[in-house]
Amino acid sequence: MTDFSHEPFSEYGEQFALPPGIIYLDGNSLGALPKSAIERVQQAVVNEWGVGLIRSWNSADWVNAPRRCGDKIAKLIGASEGEVIACDSTSTNLFKALISALALQEKRDPARNVIVSDIDNFPTDLYIAQGLRELLPQRNIELRFVKNTELRQAIDQHTSVVMLTEVDYRTGARHNMREMTALAQSNGALMLWDLAHSTCAFPIELNACNADFAVGCGYKYVNGGPGAPAYIFAAKRHLEALDAQNSAAPIAGWFAHAAPFAFEPEFRSARGILRFQTGTPSILQLAALEAALDMWLTVDLHAVRVRSNELCDAFIEAVESRCGTALTLATPRDANQRGSQVSFRHSEGYAVMQALIERGVIGDFRAPDILRFGFTPLYVTMKNVIDAAEHLHQVLATREWDQPKFKTKQAVT
Amino acid sequence: MTDFSHEPFSEYGEQFALPPGIIYLDGNSLGALPKSAIERVQQAVVNEWGVGLIRSWNSADWVNAPRRCGDKIAKLIGASEGEVIACDSTSTNLFKALISALALQEKRDPARNVIVSDIDNFPTDLYIAQGLRELLPQRNIELRFVKNTELRQAIDQHTSVVMLTEVDYRTGARHNMREMTALAQSNGALMLWDLAHSTCAFPIELNACNADFAVGCGYKYVNGGPGAPAYIFAAKRHLEALDAQNSAAPIAGWFAHAAPFAFEPEFRSARGILRFQTGTPSILQLAALEAALDMWLTVDLHAVRVRSNELCDAFIEAVESRCGTALTLATPRDANQRGSQVSFRHSEGYAVMQALIERGVIGDFRAPDILRFGFTPLYVTMKNVIDAAEHLHQVLATREWDQPKFKTKQAVT
Repeated sequence: MTDFSHEPFSEYGEQFALPPGIIYLDGNSLGALPKSAIERVQQAVVNEWGVGLIRSWNSADWVNAPRRCGDKIAKLIGASEGEVIACDSTSTNLFKALISALALQEKRDPARNVIVSDIDNFPTDLYIAQGLRELLPQRNIELRFVKNTELRQAIDQHTSVVMLTEVDYRTGARHNMREMTALAQSNGALMLWDLAHSTCAFPIELNACNADFAVGCGYKYVNGGPGAPAYIFAAKRHLEALDAQNSAAPIAGWFAHAAPFAFEPEFRSARGILRFQTGTPSILQLAALEAALDMWLTVDLHAVRVRSNELCDAFIEAVESRCGTALTLATPRDANQRGSQVSFRHSEGYAVMQALIERGVIGDFRAPDILRFGFTPLYVTMKNVIDAAEHLHQVLATREWDQPKFKTKQAVT
Repeated sequence: MTDFSHEPFSEYGEQFALPPGIIYLDGNSLGALPKSAIERVQQAVVNEWGVGLIRSWNSADWVNAPRRCGDKIAKLIGASEGEVIACDSTSTNLFKALISALALQEKRDPARNVIVSDIDNFPTDLYIAQGLRELLPQRNIELRFVKNTELRQAIDQHTSVVMLTEVDYRTGARHNMREMTALAQSNGALMLWDLAHSTCAFPIELNACNADFAVGCGYKYVNGGPGAPAYIFAAKRHLEALDAQNSAAPIAGWFAHAAPFAFEPEFRSARGILRFQTGTPSILQLAALEAALDMWLTVDLHAVRVRSNELCDAFIEAVESRCGTALTLATPRDANQRGSQVSFRHSEGYAVMQALIERGVIGDFRAPDILRFGFTPLYVTMKNVIDAAEHLHQVLATREWDQPKFKTKQAVT
């Protein structure tokens, strides 16, 4: 079993249920299982569902789970109570955030119709915007998806919303949230952050950066479980403006109603962050998510960041010293310019990663050529990092990857 | 413990984890816990998430869980393979179904702009339509929400979609799916069924009735757990037409992309039913849902219907013979005209239900005056039915409900 005794987060390593013999460097794709989540989900199934039955909506406070988890997330991302709710998927939350941002901008300056994003943004962000352009032709949405280096000049007086993922899912490169938010706003645009690869990877200061909207994922660094509810953040000023202009909830399901259990035939939007709920919340997923959040609330994210940088630096050094030019670093070498992952390029990256996984070193591959490794200080040790680099070296040095079994693409890469 | 030995579904009663001393007549709001779901969720958490980690997308076939559950649901509702997918909430699925139905109609006959529904439909159905009217002003959606008795005359050559819940959530009254679908279609409209109170309550023949679209709930009669994924059905002819007209997925998240793991910047809709996926599926909820579905696939729903009618008839008879005019039956007396629930009206219905619940007889209350009892033959016995009627009689005869503690409204009724 992994020895956490000399690690700065030694007491947390033991709180995860990690399989023996595995070095898990894919917490940026699916976070590991906190042992507390096993018990918490079992409790939700056996006691709340099985014994409490329908009464658990009140007695176990199921009805407030999205808001309660949202308030816990708020503490981890520099937001305030009532600005975050945990619900639906990141994709659906992007859909809702964009609709709301566009609705606000339409009141302020109806001529603005451009959504600016990075063409290398995670695809769902781009897809959701493309889908909205089709769905809402009356808004004449124009999409300006440009290379990262061209972002600054793409933002101008026509920009309605700038939508960016803080940390690039392929390279791990990190935007400066404060500067980019200021740039968008100085051009009159609203800033929407996707924090999929940021939340619980390092400290985030949404309100200190004056962010407008944000979404984030529950199943990556948060460790909320496969298919965990995502979250949506809207700054208090925008929630108040949406309420003041009687803007309808973007997806007007009954949980977005001001009084869902009054069963009124007329839709009246819930006020504040509750307008972003849609249907009945995913109670079992929320139970797992909340177990993870309760753990995070005891963690110092600044210390996590310090250790993440050490682990990433050590991995870069260990890989480069062993593998030389066989791999190309895709991640910024400067820790201030990256998230909590390290990526290397290799033309046979898919096969190399499959060979590594067979050795028990789990990272992942992202097309076209990215080997991606996530570093999660709560359960990844310095020894894991050095061992992983050594395995990678051996896979490359012996061309172990060059076997047909490692080249057959699976459904999910 | 409940004695199932003389019940027609005796072998199923034992498969549910019901608390002792409880008569549970609220499976129409939240179905009871199948014991197999305890193990199945535990397996998903401990083995698939904990040990398999990210590999489980392939090794545990997480990626196909929505489609796999959809195909299982298809068998229970008279649909074909590839016509159903389990994802998101009923509300979000209504949103997607309406957008798709409107898109099809716009191609056929752009002048049609009316959505017809029953003003007593479950509110989320009405809300979603109201939300779309706001969101899509270019479609000039007109909503014609009328009393059940006026539905037939409300459907005409302007009708784009008729949207109805087959079984009324308050009264339990049931539409004739075949006749109503034919009526809508003979007027050139598409028929969208909400099967929230139908699925696994009795046999459904969507394709035999030539239904166009449908949605349904996973957590009521299906017993898929609190917040279970809902489902969406689209007839094969419509899936083909949407594909042929290159209609964009209604919410263009990455799981609605033709190749989600190719990470292409350009959105291309998945073909067939997969277009209705949005973001990452809720794996833990799907595990619970699938356990329930696997049980249902061994059940004869025709026999369930026969027993449901016996239980409902017996309850009506037992209540009326004991309570006389203290209660008014709100449900059709004719079994052919109702679902699997019985509702009575009482001006102090809320307090009466709270008093009943304190006695261990769990039904629910729906404003303004409905006492609602759901009958689920797999785990409700004839003795439960008679005992429940006797408790109701005692609560009314002694005015037990007339206490302040029963009159304080809780968050969820």
